[in-house]
Amino acid sequence: LSSKLPNVGTTIFTVMSKLATETGAINLSQGFPGFDCSPELVSLVEYYLRNGFNQYAPMTGVPALRESLAQKTFEQYNVAYDPDTEVTVTSGATEAIFAALTAVIRPGDEVLVFEPAYDSYVPAIELNGGVPIYVTLTPPDYAIDWQRVAEKITDKTRLVLVNTPHNPTGHVWTRNDLNQLADLIRDRDIWIVSDEVYEHILFDGRVHHSLMTHPELQERTFVVGSFGKTFHVTGWKIGYCLAPMELTTEFRKIHQYLTFSTVTPIQYALADYLKQPDHYRKLPDFYQRKRDLFLDGLRGSRFTFTPAEGSFFQTVSYAAITDEPDYDLAIRLTKEIGVASIPVSVFYNRKNDYQILRFCFAKDDAILQEAAERLSRL
Amino acid sequence: LSSKLPNVGTTIFTVMSKLATETGAINLSQGFPGFDCSPELVSLVEYYLRNGFNQYAPMTGVPALRESLAQKTFEQYNVAYDPDTEVTVTSGATEAIFAALTAVIRPGDEVLVFEPAYDSYVPAIELNGGVPIYVTLTPPDYAIDWQRVAEKITDKTRLVLVNTPHNPTGHVWTRNDLNQLADLIRDRDIWIVSDEVYEHILFDGRVHHSLMTHPELQERTFVVGSFGKTFHVTGWKIGYCLAPMELTTEFRKIHQYLTFSTVTPIQYALADYLKQPDHYRKLPDFYQRKRDLFLDGLRGSRFTFTPAEGSFFQTVSYAAITDEPDYDLAIRLTKEIGVASIPVSVFYNRKNDYQILRFCFAKDDAILQEAAERLSRL
Ligand SMILES: CSCCC(=O)C(=O)O
Ligand SMILES: CSCCC(=O)C(=O)O
Repeated sequence: LSSKLPNVGTTIFTVMSKLATETGAINLSQGFPGFDCSPELVSLVEYYLRNGFNQYAPMTGVPALRESLAQKTFEQYNVAYDPDTEVTVTSGATEAIFAALTAVIRPGDEVLVFEPAYDSYVPAIELNGGVPIYVTLTPPDYAIDWQRVAEKITDKTRLVLVNTPHNPTGHVWTRNDLNQLADLIRDRDIWIVSDEVYEHILFDGRVHHSLMTHPELQERTFVVGSFGKTFHVTGWKIGYCLAPMELTTEFRKIHQYLTFSTVTPIQYALADYLKQPDHYRKLPDFYQRKRDLFLDGLRGSRFTFTPAEGSFFQTVSYAAITDEPDYDLAIRLTKEIGVASIPVSVFYNRKNDYQILRFCFAKDDAILQEAAERLSRL
Repeated sequence: LSSKLPNVGTTIFTVMSKLATETGAINLSQGFPGFDCSPELVSLVEYYLRNGFNQYAPMTGVPALRESLAQKTFEQYNVAYDPDTEVTVTSGATEAIFAALTAVIRPGDEVLVFEPAYDSYVPAIELNGGVPIYVTLTPPDYAIDWQRVAEKITDKTRLVLVNTPHNPTGHVWTRNDLNQLADLIRDRDIWIVSDEVYEHILFDGRVHHSLMTHPELQERTFVVGSFGKTFHVTGWKIGYCLAPMELTTEFRKIHQYLTFSTVTPIQYALADYLKQPDHYRKLPDFYQRKRDLFLDGLRGSRFTFTPAEGSFFQTVSYAAITDEPDYDLAIRLTKEIGVASIPVSVFYNRKNDYQILRFCFAKDDAILQEAAERLSRL
């Protein structure tokens, strides 16, 4: 059987998490919380599990959850999506991204990808016959040079993949970024997939500029969200896609054959839980404290960094310490110092090595302090 | 946005289940149990939910579940799959089928499909640029004419899609069918995706001939299974794929970008629950009683039928009663008599109408009796 993805090996998340487990290292590599969700959310799931909500959900998601999502979205961004025709529940954000890309991309279509890029984007583009066109962002600020973006747009450009707050860099889009993108695609048949799974995790008073808040972009955008990142349940694998009806119609045709529907009792529980906005309104403070705790611990060291603007990832430069390739260093730090991270080069097409490691700070305070202490010994 | 699946409308399962709900009809259309899973299984899920098993499972599935699956498969079919490299847990059988098809099919490849065929097969083939080549099976027995299959195999044939026990007809493959298929593909680069989600539901003493039990076929086959059908939890959406290492390697590359992983606490619960084979050994008797109860209720009527050999579906001919198209009759029966079914023509590429309806008998006895009584009035 000849491979359709010959270059794909084991994902870095699996490699590093496995190495962390084997060596007993603190695992700040793969992005998942080191703490549990609220007992209230667990109780809600139990209620639906025990009361017979165990058969197929509707293909689009249970109505109560689609309504809760539309309500929350309206309160938060003042944008109205119709729960019946514009909201779809998926098996995690990964499925939503794959489905949206599949709905749009045909063989030969060009897709703009800002790199570093989350590792599922490019294989999903390529499986659909699309051609990724890279816009490379670099440390320390990872700002977008819109002139360079303009130069990459051609008649073949069919889609732009956006991710804000950004994984792995924690960079967030500004209102100006939205306007720039709108100017570039105004007269073209270009769609957008916007991965906004960290929408609730922004720091230092920043606001999340969802692509839906720009009317010209909203019309063309599949906005992808996730409950895993917001409620500390990455293992439940429930995400969603918000998109105008015409786009949702095509999205659902794909979703229907990818997974059809998603875990019923959890959908009902999330529908209830979403009605309490306190749960996610606390997130910026909660994670900002953790980011600062980790960075405070590194201040005595020779690591350099700009504090993350959002997400639960912090990138750190080790250029002042060693010349090692980032991949080698990530392995060595895991084995020798007992802290696992992700080498950021893996998120670049050509594996550009800017000597940056990514650390996930969604961990208990004591763990973050211990990790920073170990790293400072370097 | 131009559609990549222009012919796909709302799936028949959604149409009929919705109509059944709106009209208060007995819903024997979409295939899901009308009863709940065992409280013991719910308790196991609760245990893992409450004890912090809520973050990402490994991409391949939690080790305990892969081991339980390998163990069960060995005991049942005497075929050894390595849990680390040949077993993958998915977000339902639908995802497993999509991933296996995507791993194999390239643009222009021909895929043999026996029709009537489950509705996700052909769109999944077409999204990958494959060309479905139909082998049409007809009532009353839906037997496979292997001479006709041989005539359809060309140099472009890359894959054969098998489904036994068969949805919607309840037909099951014999050992001879396996041998015939093996003879036909022996010297060719042809792979197989075998949808065996009803593996535990066979009647009148029949045995399930999994494609893995034929060594020549096993080497080339992705065997797809599901917990939803076996444990009465279609809404949990957990399935799996068993395939030789070389095939699993390619399967996982796709699965990793489709959904990455599947609900962690449920995976752990299923790993425990699978160790008690009584749960699925009881299924043939349990469902055979229901099939017979339903068919006994129809015996006074002018419906004609051959009892299903497996699955929880019974097809029934109404040719002796009316000339209406099956789709129209299914709608009318729902509205006027209060019993929803699936018109079998929707499972044929050209919507061949053999005047057959499919009824799901995974329902409580009283419901089946009432449905048969209502139908007999026709
Ligand atoms: C699906 S595993 C990867 C989790 C994640 O979002 C990350 O670590 O970047
Ligand atoms: C995924 S909804 C369809 C359920 C089913 O297997 C059927 O009714 O055939």
